[in-house]
Amino acid sequence: MADESLQPWEDLGERLRTGDAEALREFFGHHPPMVAIQASLRLTRAEQRQLIKILGPERVADFMKTVSETMAADLIEDLPPAEAAAIVDELRSDRQADLLGALGEEQAEAILQELRPEQAAELRALASYAPNTAGGLMTTEFLAFPGQMQVVELLDDLRENRDRYSDFEVQYAYVLGPGGTLIGILPMRDILFSARNRRLTELMISHPRRVLVTASLDELIRFFETHSFIGVPVVDAANRLVGVVRRAAVDEARGEEASSVLLKISGIIGGEEFRSMPLWLRSGRRLAFLSVNIVLNILAASVIALYQETLAAAITLAVFLPIISDMSGCSGNQAVAVSMRELSLGLVRPREIGRVVLKEGSLGVINGVALGALLALVALLWKGNPYLGLVVGTALAANTLLSVVVGGTLPLLLKRLKVDPALVSGPMLTTITDMCGFFLVLSLASAVLPRLT
Amino acid sequence: MADESLQPWEDLGERLRTGDAEALREFFGHHPPMVAIQASLRLTRAEQRQLIKILGPERVADFMKTVSETMAADLIEDLPPAEAAAIVDELRSDRQADLLGALGEEQAEAILQELRPEQAAELRALASYAPNTAGGLMTTEFLAFPGQMQVVELLDDLRENRDRYSDFEVQYAYVLGPGGTLIGILPMRDILFSARNRRLTELMISHPRRVLVTASLDELIRFFETHSFIGVPVVDAANRLVGVVRRAAVDEARGEEASSVLLKISGIIGGEEFRSMPLWLRSGRRLAFLSVNIVLNILAASVIALYQETLAAAITLAVFLPIISDMSGCSGNQAVAVSMRELSLGLVRPREIGRVVLKEGSLGVINGVALGALLALVALLWKGNPYLGLVVGTALAANTLLSVVVGGTLPLLLKRLKVDPALVSGPMLTTITDMCGFFLVLSLASAVLPRLT
Repeated sequence: MADESLQPWEDLGERLRTGDAEALREFFGHHPPMVAIQASLRLTRAEQRQLIKILGPERVADFMKTVSETMAADLIEDLPPAEAAAIVDELRSDRQADLLGALGEEQAEAILQELRPEQAAELRALASYAPNTAGGLMTTEFLAFPGQMQVVELLDDLRENRDRYSDFEVQYAYVLGPGGTLIGILPMRDILFSARNRRLTELMISHPRRVLVTASLDELIRFFETHSFIGVPVVDAANRLVGVVRRAAVDEARGEEASSVLLKISGIIGGEEFRSMPLWLRSGRRLAFLSVNIVLNILAASVIALYQETLAAAITLAVFLPIISDMSGCSGNQAVAVSMRELSLGLVRPREIGRVVLKEGSLGVINGVALGALLALVALLWKGNPYLGLVVGTALAANTLLSVVVGGTLPLLLKRLKVDPALVSGPMLTTITDMCGFFLVLSLASAVLPRLT
Repeated sequence: MADESLQPWEDLGERLRTGDAEALREFFGHHPPMVAIQASLRLTRAEQRQLIKILGPERVADFMKTVSETMAADLIEDLPPAEAAAIVDELRSDRQADLLGALGEEQAEAILQELRPEQAAELRALASYAPNTAGGLMTTEFLAFPGQMQVVELLDDLRENRDRYSDFEVQYAYVLGPGGTLIGILPMRDILFSARNRRLTELMISHPRRVLVTASLDELIRFFETHSFIGVPVVDAANRLVGVVRRAAVDEARGEEASSVLLKISGIIGGEEFRSMPLWLRSGRRLAFLSVNIVLNILAASVIALYQETLAAAITLAVFLPIISDMSGCSGNQAVAVSMRELSLGLVRPREIGRVVLKEGSLGVINGVALGALLALVALLWKGNPYLGLVVGTALAANTLLSVVVGGTLPLLLKRLKVDPALVSGPMLTTITDMCGFFLVLSLASAVLPRLT
């Protein structure tokens, strides 16, 4: 599907050069924004700017709703502040704050200067909350009414402000007490069934579930896992209603986190890279990870240097060193992945090292024996020397056991130390397992050296 | 937060043994289901069964709404069919079908036998759709009314069937023409503003967006990315309305897919492992991956065997072989991760090999030269032999370039061959890069061997 839908954009750059603005606008109107974004990412900066001008703020904002902040920021970062502000103005408040957060400080400030003062003030407040907290994820577009209001007044208000409310989630209205405190919520469907002269306080559900503005993404994920609400009201320390976190915003943040874990675990610092980013940035971030990794690699390989004489005497071992290094890394990474998943689902706690050691240890014995026996057999068949088989088989078996135990517990330990396990677990694991693996093979080989040669 | 909330369950097994059912029920009533599930996963099978009995079907079903199908299936798979059916009966139709799909065929059939015949027939139909398609993700609980109905009749129906509809999404009603075909949708909020004697056909939005029952998860993700609807109606080939896919179901499936990619990329077959699963299953699945991997490893290492004489003559090289193998693997995995991410976001198409080669190639030259120079310097400082530095530095530089190009393009090629890149990219990549890396170091070394010793 993706394949065909992109085809019309193959020649987008060409179309921009020939410059039929009307045809372009019509084209964009007929294709889903995602397709258009994908196509526009392939354009040069100058072409992008030209396209943004042709499409106008409203249409560009429509596109920006469907991409990540980083990509959205990338699209508008070189625009004059007034043009960028016109686009920002079309977005919902939570998106606006995210986008300003993703831009440079100077640029964000320039855009804020172009917005209405009260809107700018609200955005400054929203932007002051940490990104993956209730404050950072909430929207300030929600329906809230004083408790003394009657149903008929509420309906009048809805009718009068229909345009303004058009982007709002309207499944619930929030009911406010003195000083804007949250005292209840009112499912809008209940309005359907109620007499027109009832007051909201009579109809509302009192003491509704709420979250503090400082609640973390993890807490919000758990909240929506355990409650089937479409949104949750956010209050400050004085119980004043300050926003609403929509379930969709939490799902989105969670999805972004999951895919950034995938990138981090593979060694992409920051958990974000698109091939449309500048080369120096992509190369630099990857190198930062790799240059730490090469130092760790050299450290691990230095174990081999200590046993050069053994190795020279039984050169066949050199064939098995990379096998044991790679296999142990794989076994350990399986355990790392399972631990990270269980941590993120809350199925294991950072303190439960003992449980993980037990679970991985028993698995490590089985898999270690199986893989060790297989490698021993290969060595025996190849060289006809049972001692060679014994050395490499025992080393792989022991190192597999070690790898799964280290791999399983490392994410828990790192979490306790408040270090992100995604980026750090892999290199730490392979350094430890390489060192131990090389040491096991070569020290065992030293012990039986006369039998090996 | 997770830490503290789990504490009450530390002694759950103990509580079950002492057997105060009333206290247990009260306890479970006061804690979010997720916490309870987490605690219950630590119980033995017998204790789990006892707990399920004490809590009763409704409460167990509440818990099961919050966990993945695999975990839910695991919880009920040993129950007598009648008890399991009572729990299944409490779930929403899409969940029911997922759960039955996750159970063994025999067991699913036994449970279906216990349900009402029409319910069983509906579930059999739902279960016949592939899991990650519109059919597999849709729910059959939605509001649908004939187009000739008046608003007042609709409101009466809502009032009369309020209990039955209590679990339904009610933001939209679907309007049906002859033979149950989809002719329009009706936002429930519009009912608020309309005269009681209007017919639904006058109010409805005609030609609503819909998806075919065979639509893939990718298509649904794109749909919800480009449309802000809370759900989308699903029709069969004859345009009959057969279900509704909720945005939440797509988000959930997407999240499950993302975390299963994380597991698969680390070598967990099937993309699913919890430490509460039986040891033989966990061990077996991991071994299946590892035993393919060890064969590939032996294949790659056999390149070293061909150059044993070179290696014996310049034994220092043995220290560098694992470094070059590991570093190339890391560089390649970074490229794999970026490609997989861009593929899943639709930012790159499987056919765009050329673009990826260009992007990765230029990055590979920079990173290759940087890492190669670093390793050459280390070799030079260690042994004082510039030829050694030249050999290992050139080999790493060339192999880094190769790794990022292979790593970047492999997921695209696999996708074109309809092979899941998550599980296969890693082992294929390291086999290729190890073989080339070993070959590069050792053949370069052979060429300048007199200078190395």
